[in-house]
Amino acid sequence: MTDSLSTALDYAHQHQNEVLQSLNELLTFPSISTNPDSCPDLERAAAWLAGYLKRIGAQAVQILPTGGSPVVYGELKTAGPAAPTILIYGHYDVQPAEPLELWQSQPFEPQVRGDYLYARGSSDMKGQILAALAAVDSLSATGGLAVNVKFLLEGEEEIGSPHLGEFIRQHKELLACDLSLNPDAGMTAADLPTITYGLRGLAYFELRIYSPDHDLHSGQFGGVVHNPAQALCELVAGMHDASGFITLPGFYDRVRAIDAQEKAELNRLPMDEGFYLQQTGVPALWGEPQYTPVERIAVRPTLEVNGMLSGFTGAGAKTVIPSYAMAKLSMRLVPDQHPDDVDKSLRAYLTAHVPPSVRWELDSYGGAPASITDQNSKGIEALSRALEAVWGKRPVFRREGGSIPVVLDMQQILGADSALTGFGLPDDNIHAPNEKLHLPTWKRGIDALIHFLVYASDGVK
Amino acid sequence: MTDSLSTALDYAHQHQNEVLQSLNELLTFPSISTNPDSCPDLERAAAWLAGYLKRIGAQAVQILPTGGSPVVYGELKTAGPAAPTILIYGHYDVQPAEPLELWQSQPFEPQVRGDYLYARGSSDMKGQILAALAAVDSLSATGGLAVNVKFLLEGEEEIGSPHLGEFIRQHKELLACDLSLNPDAGMTAADLPTITYGLRGLAYFELRIYSPDHDLHSGQFGGVVHNPAQALCELVAGMHDASGFITLPGFYDRVRAIDAQEKAELNRLPMDEGFYLQQTGVPALWGEPQYTPVERIAVRPTLEVNGMLSGFTGAGAKTVIPSYAMAKLSMRLVPDQHPDDVDKSLRAYLTAHVPPSVRWELDSYGGAPASITDQNSKGIEALSRALEAVWGKRPVFRREGGSIPVVLDMQQILGADSALTGFGLPDDNIHAPNEKLHLPTWKRGIDALIHFLVYASDGVK
Repeated sequence: MTDSLSTALDYAHQHQNEVLQSLNELLTFPSISTNPDSCPDLERAAAWLAGYLKRIGAQAVQILPTGGSPVVYGELKTAGPAAPTILIYGHYDVQPAEPLELWQSQPFEPQVRGDYLYARGSSDMKGQILAALAAVDSLSATGGLAVNVKFLLEGEEEIGSPHLGEFIRQHKELLACDLSLNPDAGMTAADLPTITYGLRGLAYFELRIYSPDHDLHSGQFGGVVHNPAQALCELVAGMHDASGFITLPGFYDRVRAIDAQEKAELNRLPMDEGFYLQQTGVPALWGEPQYTPVERIAVRPTLEVNGMLSGFTGAGAKTVIPSYAMAKLSMRLVPDQHPDDVDKSLRAYLTAHVPPSVRWELDSYGGAPASITDQNSKGIEALSRALEAVWGKRPVFRREGGSIPVVLDMQQILGADSALTGFGLPDDNIHAPNEKLHLPTWKRGIDALIHFLVYASDGVK
Repeated sequence: MTDSLSTALDYAHQHQNEVLQSLNELLTFPSISTNPDSCPDLERAAAWLAGYLKRIGAQAVQILPTGGSPVVYGELKTAGPAAPTILIYGHYDVQPAEPLELWQSQPFEPQVRGDYLYARGSSDMKGQILAALAAVDSLSATGGLAVNVKFLLEGEEEIGSPHLGEFIRQHKELLACDLSLNPDAGMTAADLPTITYGLRGLAYFELRIYSPDHDLHSGQFGGVVHNPAQALCELVAGMHDASGFITLPGFYDRVRAIDAQEKAELNRLPMDEGFYLQQTGVPALWGEPQYTPVERIAVRPTLEVNGMLSGFTGAGAKTVIPSYAMAKLSMRLVPDQHPDDVDKSLRAYLTAHVPPSVRWELDSYGGAPASITDQNSKGIEALSRALEAVWGKRPVFRREGGSIPVVLDMQQILGADSALTGFGLPDDNIHAPNEKLHLPTWKRGIDALIHFLVYASDGVK
């Protein structure tokens, strides 16, 4: 172990409680990007991060406007122009906390119980941001930072980063880098350090079905009008066949098949039927029977109902025929599907299947295609060595079911690959009540990122 | 015209504004029976009605407890034991007012605009109650009341009158009568006085589909779990075939066919496709093609989705796989279906069709079978003559798509037929925003009920 590495690790271990304290502060901001009322909280979270960047010695710290929530930028360029530049990506926005009644402690009042820190955003991804900041600080404060570091911390990831592509385009020179480190990708298990080389894309829609022009009495009119909730159910039900195959016309046209080697690698991941049963609590798995569970998540596109609302949903009984019904629908996309193609597929399906007895409206909330990172690049190799150094085993390589639109933007606009890792666990309840962060894994993550920044100093340019 | 009749009509016309003023008072109570928080408002409405009964000279006025909202009782027995007794039924509870933002004036702040009085309950049925009270008062105050009158005003009709059957059973002697007048059945059009001789029954359910034990990230888990909103859609969609026929096993087993004469009568009603298109605003009608619209509503059972909720329904996008999905389902029943049989049909369907990938729960909210009144009874004849006297034409006879459980209880427990009429119009927006009462029709209704009480004096015992 080099001197600078061990010195930085010592520093990190000595300052762990301070970093945890800072994380607790950051977690108190309800920076919910999907909620228009949370704008001030997002701005407060951004200001807090800018302050933190300054405290760890970052230069050129700025809160930069976008069409939505601001981006926090900062840099530590002490390694000189010959050294490689790593752009560390993070997002300070979080998912909504609803349903609030299922939380055991308040979502924005962090609480440690056992090995876990409970709070919305603890795992996804304020905890990951502070791990990266702590790693940089540990090297910088001890004089061992041999790469240049830039930070790009955005506030709209949870709503699909609608303004980030444009932002990166506008600040292409400021953000220029050799590699992006993105710790938003999570681990397979606490003892399995993980590098993610593929991400699914996303397309998000709201479908509304209208039938009568006002709510109707189901006795007076039941039997002659097409109940819009029923019509919505018929349309949603028809979007899959009995085996879980999506029926939208042309939906699979651009889905890339995987080769035997990748298939074998994927299926070596410890994510079998038992794993998913345990993680989800479902009575039985579901999905395309010709694919294994891990394949269905890594290399197959999906279509999900994310929300649904119609008519009377309070306590008791109301005999109403609702005037409309709404479903939030989203697709996870795989290479080489594009959100625009999927938009066309969905509209083609609706045009063909919506009956004349109802009217429909479809809002597209945008999305991003899937992305794949080269497994053999020097950056991925540095990250792989770093994880192995801390966990004592080679990391697993996987394709992830989630979507990180920025990874694609980094590739397309900055020409930079992303090293995707992270220290969130599958049972952290991200996007759900009682989100939590496994603190022992998080601390190892700080150590691993210190290793990575040291190994990257001669490996990624 | 008899002296007592014309004297009472004069009295009614002179006191119309006072009655309208009283109706405005009654309409300010948000007596929403499906809302547990409205209990005090229901009690206030009951107390107001008891006071009003006393003011018009009723005896034995009582607010009687039930398992839920109280019943208001009062009687005017001045006609003596030889005269027939009419039990006037009404309900002082109303439907919820949501969605509030679609009301042009506040639902519980009555407002007259043009010929209409706008308020929740104006048509269904506080306006009908005050019309009946005004008719009795007009005869009583002028010494012309030749029948005994009892009032039974309940507060749970809009939730299916769950305690009324038991109440009638317990108070069988108090409520003993020769005929029940029920003005909750509405008119076909402002120029078509209407007598309803058949009502559909009701069965109401809440179905919940559970899949994962908490909300899941749709990227991490999309593809291996059966989305409960999708599963709910599949189940709901399967409850009808493409022609609108309900697929629940045995659902139609006890549906009574109608004969050619009744079919011909029904289809003489001015309720064709154009009528229903105009009333509902749907782009095209829907339903079993082998039945006309009026047949589908009068003599065919239906299954409606009254409400549906799952996952994220706020503004924006949230990529969640919900842990559960809920639908409120209700069936309108026709002779000789029974709610218990329908409950069995629905459970048989769910048992057969819910896949192993999800769990289900079904709550039954109860219901009532359909009912039919003898068209040739003396009470119906008195009502028919009364309507003809005011409108100058024979009333139409119809079967109604709605449900009035009390009609069945009156038949089964008290042995009394119901004379079903009313002065609400199809476009009154009952159960919907901007409920309204057509005041010219309402005033004719008071006149018609005065005629009825006079004609009934020698006709119904």
